[in-house]
Amino acid sequence: MGDSAYSFSLTTFSRTGKLLQIEYALNAVSNGRCSLGIAAKDGVVIATDKKVSSTLIDVDEVQKIQSISPTSGFVYSGLGPDYRVLTRSARKNSAAYERTYGEAQPITQTVKQTASLMQEYTQSGGVRPFGCSVLAAGFDEDGEPKLFQVDPSGAYFGWRATAIGKGFVNAKSFLEKRVTSEILLEDAVHTCLLTLRESFEGEINGKNIEVGVLEKGGGFRILKEEEVNDYLNEAN
Amino acid sequence: MGDSAYSFSLTTFSRTGKLLQIEYALNAVSNGRCSLGIAAKDGVVIATDKKVSSTLIDVDEVQKIQSISPTSGFVYSGLGPDYRVLTRSARKNSAAYERTYGEAQPITQTVKQTASLMQEYTQSGGVRPFGCSVLAAGFDEDGEPKLFQVDPSGAYFGWRATAIGKGFVNAKSFLEKRVTSEILLEDAVHTCLLTLRESFEGEINGKNIEVGVLEKGGGFRILKEEEVNDYLNEAN
Amino acid sequence: MGDSAYSFSLTTFSRTGKLLQIEYALNAVSNGRCSLGIAAKDGVVIATDKKVSSTLIDVDEVQKIQSISPTSGFVYSGLGPDYRVLTRSARKNSAAYERTYGEAQPITQTVKQTASLMQEYTQSGGVRPFGCSVLAAGFDEDGEPKLFQVDPSGAYFGWRATAIGKGFVNAKSFLEKRVTSEILLEDAVHTCLLTLRESFEGEINGKNIEVGVLEKGGGFRILKEEEVNDYLNEAN
Amino acid sequence: MGDSAYSFSLTTFSRTGKLLQIEYALNAVSNGRCSLGIAAKDGVVIATDKKVSSTLIDVDEVQKIQSISPTSGFVYSGLGPDYRVLTRSARKNSAAYERTYGEAQPITQTVKQTASLMQEYTQSGGVRPFGCSVLAAGFDEDGEPKLFQVDPSGAYFGWRATAIGKGFVNAKSFLEKRVTSEILLEDAVHTCLLTLRESFEGEINGKNIEVGVLEKGGGFRILKEEEVNDYLNEAN
Amino acid sequence: MGDSAYSFSLTTFSRTGKLLQIEYALNAVSNGRCSLGIAAKDGVVIATDKKVSSTLIDVDEVQKIQSISPTSGFVYSGLGPDYRVLTRSARKNSAAYERTYGEAQPITQTVKQTASLMQEYTQSGGVRPFGCSVLAAGFDEDGEPKLFQVDPSGAYFGWRATAIGKGFVNAKSFLEKRVTSEILLEDAVHTCLLTLRESFEGEINGKNIEVGVLEKGGGFRILKEEEVNDYLNEAN
Amino acid sequence: MGDSAYSFSLTTFSRTGKLLQIEYALNAVSNGRCSLGIAAKDGVVIATDKKVSSTLIDVDEVQKIQSISPTSGFVYSGLGPDYRVLTRSARKNSAAYERTYGEAQPITQTVKQTASLMQEYTQSGGVRPFGCSVLAAGFDEDGEPKLFQVDPSGAYFGWRATAIGKGFVNAKSFLEKRVTSEILLEDAVHTCLLTLRESFEGEINGKNIEVGVLEKGGGFRILKEEEVNDYLNEAN
Amino acid sequence: MGDSAYSFSLTTFSRTGKLLQIEYALNAVSNGRCSLGIAAKDGVVIATDKKVSSTLIDVDEVQKIQSISPTSGFVYSGLGPDYRVLTRSARKNSAAYERTYGEAQPITQTVKQTASLMQEYTQSGGVRPFGCSVLAAGFDEDGEPKLFQVDPSGAYFGWRATAIGKGFVNAKSFLEKRVTSEILLEDAVHTCLLTLRESFEGEINGKNIEVGVLEKGGGFRILKEEEVNDYLNEAN
Repeated sequence: MGDSAYSFSLTTFSRTGKLLQIEYALNAVSNGRCSLGIAAKDGVVIATDKKVSSTLIDVDEVQKIQSISPTSGFVYSGLGPDYRVLTRSARKNSAAYERTYGEAQPITQTVKQTASLMQEYTQSGGVRPFGCSVLAAGFDEDGEPKLFQVDPSGAYFGWRATAIGKGFVNAKSFLEKRVTSEILLEDAVHTCLLTLRESFEGEINGKNIEVGVLEKGGGFRILKEEEVNDYLNEAN
Repeated sequence: MGDSAYSFSLTTFSRTGKLLQIEYALNAVSNGRCSLGIAAKDGVVIATDKKVSSTLIDVDEVQKIQSISPTSGFVYSGLGPDYRVLTRSARKNSAAYERTYGEAQPITQTVKQTASLMQEYTQSGGVRPFGCSVLAAGFDEDGEPKLFQVDPSGAYFGWRATAIGKGFVNAKSFLEKRVTSEILLEDAVHTCLLTLRESFEGEINGKNIEVGVLEKGGGFRILKEEEVNDYLNEAN
Repeated sequence: MGDSAYSFSLTTFSRTGKLLQIEYALNAVSNGRCSLGIAAKDGVVIATDKKVSSTLIDVDEVQKIQSISPTSGFVYSGLGPDYRVLTRSARKNSAAYERTYGEAQPITQTVKQTASLMQEYTQSGGVRPFGCSVLAAGFDEDGEPKLFQVDPSGAYFGWRATAIGKGFVNAKSFLEKRVTSEILLEDAVHTCLLTLRESFEGEINGKNIEVGVLEKGGGFRILKEEEVNDYLNEAN
Repeated sequence: MGDSAYSFSLTTFSRTGKLLQIEYALNAVSNGRCSLGIAAKDGVVIATDKKVSSTLIDVDEVQKIQSISPTSGFVYSGLGPDYRVLTRSARKNSAAYERTYGEAQPITQTVKQTASLMQEYTQSGGVRPFGCSVLAAGFDEDGEPKLFQVDPSGAYFGWRATAIGKGFVNAKSFLEKRVTSEILLEDAVHTCLLTLRESFEGEINGKNIEVGVLEKGGGFRILKEEEVNDYLNEAN
Repeated sequence: MGDSAYSFSLTTFSRTGKLLQIEYALNAVSNGRCSLGIAAKDGVVIATDKKVSSTLIDVDEVQKIQSISPTSGFVYSGLGPDYRVLTRSARKNSAAYERTYGEAQPITQTVKQTASLMQEYTQSGGVRPFGCSVLAAGFDEDGEPKLFQVDPSGAYFGWRATAIGKGFVNAKSFLEKRVTSEILLEDAVHTCLLTLRESFEGEINGKNIEVGVLEKGGGFRILKEEEVNDYLNEAN
Repeated sequence: MGDSAYSFSLTTFSRTGKLLQIEYALNAVSNGRCSLGIAAKDGVVIATDKKVSSTLIDVDEVQKIQSISPTSGFVYSGLGPDYRVLTRSARKNSAAYERTYGEAQPITQTVKQTASLMQEYTQSGGVRPFGCSVLAAGFDEDGEPKLFQVDPSGAYFGWRATAIGKGFVNAKSFLEKRVTSEILLEDAVHTCLLTLRESFEGEINGKNIEVGVLEKGGGFRILKEEEVNDYLNEAN
Repeated sequence: MGDSAYSFSLTTFSRTGKLLQIEYALNAVSNGRCSLGIAAKDGVVIATDKKVSSTLIDVDEVQKIQSISPTSGFVYSGLGPDYRVLTRSARKNSAAYERTYGEAQPITQTVKQTASLMQEYTQSGGVRPFGCSVLAAGFDEDGEPKLFQVDPSGAYFGWRATAIGKGFVNAKSFLEKRVTSEILLEDAVHTCLLTLRESFEGEINGKNIEVGVLEKGGGFRILKEEEVNDYLNEAN
C-alpha cells in the first residue's frame, strides 16, 4: 500500500472538500530545497539552497533563480522541470506585455498570469497540478519592490518575507523575528543568508547558494559567486 | 480510507439523487474564511475576514473583494484561485455588455452568467466544480441595490443578508435577528462588522477585514483601511 | 458504502435493463420542492412551492416559473441550475421558430426540443442526465391549452393535471379526485392552490408559492403576489 | 451487488462472446409495453399497448406509432426517448431519399439505415446502445407490404407477424397459431387486437391502444379512436 | 462473476500474449449459425444455415449471403449487424477500385481491405473488435476462383474448403475427407449441402439454407430456393 | 485470475521499470511460428515456418514473407494482422524515399521507420503495442546485405543470424554454432533450412516453409516451392 | 501482485508528493547498460557499454552514441526506442537553430529543448514518461565543452563527470576519486575506459564499448573500433 494507494488522476474534491492532488503537490514542494525572499523598502532579495547531490555536478550550470524580465525574477522549491514550464510562460507573457504597452509588466500581472496557469492545471481534465511553488520578485504598478509566493493551487500572496521548501516552517519563524517593515535591502540580503545558513547542512558559500537582488529603480540580477562570498565574509 | 475513498472524477448522481462532487465543493466553501453581505434600502455592503496565516504576509496585496464593474463587486469563501477564474469571466462579460448596450450590466445578468459557468462545470466531462461560493453586490434593472449568493452547483438566490464560509450558520442567525427590510447602508455596514467580529479570532481591524460598499446612485468601492477603522471606532 | 457506492460516470444499462443514472436523477427531482399544473378547458395553470430555507432570502428574486415565449411557461422540481440550462435552450429555440415561421412555436414543439436535449445527456459520453423534471404550459398547433411533463430520461407526456417533486404521489392522487376534463381555469387555479396547501409546511401565501397562468387566446403570465393572495382569500 | 455490479461503459465482449450492454438493452425492451404487427397480403398493421400509468395523462398526446413517410410507420417497445432519436433520423433519411430519387424510400432502405445507426452505438466509444426495439411497416422495392423488427444490436428481420415488449413470448406463440401467409389486412387487424387483448390488464379500447395501418397501394395512417373501437365492437 | 468479470474495454495483451477481446469475439462467431465454402477448380460455392428462430420470420427477407461486386460474395457467422458494416465497406471499396482501374477488384484486394478494417478495430482506442468471421468468394488476379476466411483479429487465409460458426470443427473434418484439389463446382455444391445437412437440426431445404455460387468466367449469384431444392432432390 | 488479471490499457511503467504490455506482446511473438534469417557475405536469407493448422488451407495464398521494395523483404513471428500494418507502412515509406531520392531506400532507413512506428504504439494514449517481431533483409547505404530484427518495443538490432517465434532460443544457439562471418549465401540458405527442420513438427518442404533471398547486387525474391524442395533434396 | 499492482496511467502525485511513474521510469534507466561521460578542460568524452546479448548481433550496427549536430552528441541508458524519439527531436531542433541563427546551437539549448519534451510527457494526459536518461556533450554559448545529464522527469544538470544505468553508483564514486576540474581530454578518455572496465562483465574492447569525443574547437565524433582498442592497449 502506502504510495500505491493512488488518488485518481483528475484533481477532484475529497469528502472534506480538499483537492488531494494539490495537497500532494505541496508535499513535492516541501521535499525540495529551501528558497526564501524578503521585500525590503528599497528592493527585494530572493535566495535558495542549490546544494547538489554530488561534487561532480557542474554548479556553474545550476541556476535556480531565473530572471523573467530585466526587472523581475523567480525562484522555486519542488520539481525543477515543472518550474521551467512556468518561467518559460512568464517570460513570454512579460515580453508580450512590454511590446504591447511599451513598459515593464508589473510583477502583480506576472504573478497573476503564472497563478492562472497553475489553477488551470487543477481544474482541467487529464493533467496534474504543478509540483512547485514560486517566489517572484519585481516592481508593482507604482514601482514599489514586491515579493510574491505562488503555490500549486494557483493561490498567491504578497509577503514581506517568506520561505518555501524543506524547513520552511523554521525559516519563516526565523524571518518573522528579524524582518521589520523598515528593513533595507542590504540588511535583507544578510538576513536571507543567515536564515539559509540556519538550516543548511554544511557550510554555505557562493557555490551552493544562489541570491537574486532587485534594487528599487534598478534591475534584477543574480549575484556572482564572489559577491555572495563577500556578503558571507562581511557577516563573520 | 478516509480521504482516499475518492468519488469518481465526473460529477455523477449518487443513488439518493445527490451530486457528491458538489456537496464536497460546498465543504471547501465552508472551510474558507467567512464572508457576508447585507442589501440595505440605499445600498449594499459586502465584507470578509481576510486574516492571514502569517504576520509576514503583505496584507496590502490581499484583496478578496473584487470590483467587477464600476457599479458591482464580488467577494467569496473557499478556493481563491477558483474565484479568480470567476471574476475574470464576470469582468469580461460585464464589459462586453456595457460596450454592446451602452449601459452598466444589471447585477442579475452578471450573476446569471457566473452561475451558468459554475453549472457547466458540474455537467461537463473531465472537470470538477468550482470550490467557492460568491457574494455579488450590484444594481438590478431598476437601479435597486441587490445582494446575490452563487454556489458551486450554479444555484443563486437574492438575499437581504447572508453569510458563507466558516461559521456561516451562526453568522446568518445573527444577521436574521438584526437585519430588517428597512435597514440603511450605514447601519448595514455596522451590522456586518458586528457579525464578523462575533466569530473573529482576535481583534478585527482595517487590516484583517475587507469591506466593499455600493451606494444607491453611486459606484462600488472597497473601503480604505482607515475607513474600516473609523467604522469600528464609531461602534465602540 | 451508501453514497460512496457510485455507479460509473456514463449512463449505461444495468443487468435489468435500467439506466441507473436516470433513476438517480429522478431521485434528485423527488428531493425538490413540489410543482404541479392543470390543463383546463380554457387555459393552463402551473404552480410551485417556492418556500425558501431562510427568511433572509429576497423572495422577490426567487422565480421558479419562467416564461419561455409570450404564450408558454415552464416550472420545475429538482436542481435549479440544470433547469436554467433548459429554459435558456427552450427560449432560444422558441424565438428562432417565431422568427422563421412568423408565429408562436406550438408547445408540443418546445417540449420535444427540450426532451431531445435531455435524452442526449443520457446517451452521450462523459455527461450526466439533467437533475430536474419540467412542467410546460402552452398552446398546441390548434391553439388548445396543454400541459406537459418532461423527465430526466427525455420522456414526456401530456397531462390533464400532474405533480412533480416532494410529495408528488399524494398530490397526484389529490388531483385525480378533483380534476375533470371539464374543469375551467378559475377552478383549476383554486385546485392547484388547494393541492399545494395540502402538503405545504406552514401557511401558503403569495410570497412562498408561485403561480403561472395561460388563458386560452391570451398570453402566459406569472401572478403577482397580491393576485395569489386574492385567490387564497377567496378560497377561505 | 445486484444492479450496482455494473458492466463497464463500453460495449465489450464477455468471455462467452456476448455483448452484455446489448443484452441489458434488450431487457429494457422487454420491460416496455407490448407492440406487435402483422404483414398481410394486402397491407400491414402495427399496434401497441399505450395504457398509461395515470388517468390524468392526456392520452390524446400519447402517440407511440409514428409515420416516417406517407407510406411507412414505426412503433416501439422500450425507452421512448431513445425511440424518438430513431424516428427523427429515419424521417430525415426518408425525406432525403425522396428528394433525391423522386420516389418513396423502400422500407428495406429505411430499416437498414435505422439498423446501422443502432449498430454504431454498439461499437463506438463512450456511448450506450439504444434501449428500444422498433417495428417498421412499409412497402419494399416491389410495392409489397412488409413488416420489420429492428433490435438494439442493429439486427433486423422481416416478419409475417411479430411482437416485442412485455409478454412478447406469449404474443408471438398466439400469432403463430393465427397468422397464415394468406391473411388479409382486415383479418390481420382483428388478430392484432385479439393478441393485444390477451395480455392486456383491463379492457382495451381506442384510448389505451394504438393501431397503424398500411394498405397496399395506399398510405400509412394511424386509426382514430372510433375506428379502433369499431374494430373492437365488430369482434364482440 | 462469470460474465461480470469483464476484461477491460481496450483490446490489450494478457500476460500470456493473448488479445482476449479477440478471443471472446471468436466465441461470438462460434455461437453463430454455421457457414461454409469450397473453392473448386471451376468456381466457388459458399453456403450457410439461415434457419430462423420463429416460423413467423419472413425468410425471403433473410439474406446472409451478400454479393460485394458482380463477381464476388460474402457470407458470415456471428453478429449480423457487425457483418453489415463490413459488406458496406467492401462494396464501396470494390466499386471504387473498378471505377479507378476499369476492371473488377481481385478478391485478394477485397479481402485485404476487409481484414485491415477488422485489424484496426483491435488496435484503436475505445472500440471493440468485430463479432463475426467472413467467408469471401471471388477471383484472384489471374481469374482463378478463390475462397477466403477473415477472422475478427484481421487474420485471413485462402482455403480450399472451410467452415465457421456452430459446429465448424465437425464440418471442417467432414470437408477434409471429401474435398480434393480436383473437385468441380457441381460436386462442391453437393458437398456443401451434405456438410450442412450433417449438423442441421431438422430437414434442410431451399428456405432454411442459402447458397451462393461463382462460376469461373461468370458472375456471383445466390441460388433461388428452387435451385437449392433441385440440388437437394438430386442428392437423394 | 490468470488471464483475467489484466494490466491497464495504457503501456505504463511497473514498479521495476518494465513496460508490461510490451513484455506481453513479446509473448505473442513467442507464441507465433518460428522465423529466422542469416546475413551472409554475399546476401541475406530469411525463412519461416508457415505450416498451417489445416490441410484445407490454400497454402499458395499463405505468404508470410513480403517484399517491401525490389531489394528488401520482411518476415515476422506473432500476429499476422499487426504485421500487415507494418509492411503497408514500410512499403509506402520505401516508395516515397525512392521517388524523392531516385534510389532504393537503405534497409537501415526502412528499419528505423518501422521501429519508430512500433515505439509510438508503446507511448501514445489508448493503443496497444504491435504483437509481432519483424526480420528485415536489405542493403545498407554501402550496398552491403544486412539483416535486422525489430521488436514490439521498437528496439532493433542488426544480426548476422537470428530467430524469432516458437523455439527461437534453440534456433539461435543452433545458428550460433553454424554461422560464421564468412558464410556465403548458398550455405546460409542450407543452414536456415537445417535450423528450421530441427524444431519442425513433421517433414519440411516447399509447401510448409517459405524462404526469401537477397543476393548482393541483385533483388529480393521469394523462392518457389520447387526451389525450396531442390535445396532440401540437395541437403539429403 | 508484484508487478501487477500497477499505478494508474497518468503521472499523478502520490501522497508523499512523488510522481511514481517517473520513479519507475528511473528504474528502467538503472536496468539499462552503463553510460558515462567526463567534461574535460579541452573537450568532452562520453562512453557506453554496448555489450550485446548474443554473439550473433552485428555489433557494427549497434550505435548507442548519436551525433546531434556536427559539434554535439548524445548517449543514453534505458529504453533505446524512447531514446531515438529524443535524438530525432534534438536533431531537428538543432538543425532549425542553425538555419535560423547561422551558428551551431549551444548544447545548453539542445538540452533544454530535450528536457522540456521529457517534462511534457510527465504532465500531459494519456502518455507515459520517457524510459531513458540522456548524456549530452557539446559546447556552451562561450564555446566551452560541457556535459549534461537529462532524466525522465525532465530534470537536467551540468556535470564534470557522471554515469547512468547499471552500476552508476559505483561508477560515479570511481569518477569522483579520479576526475579533477583540471583534467584533460586524453586523460578523461582513459578514465572513462577505466571506469567502464571496472564494472564490465568480461573484457572490454572496441567492439563492446562505444566512445564519443568532442575536442574544444573541433567537432563531435565517435571513435572507431581501432581507436578504442589503441586507447585500451595504451592503458595496459
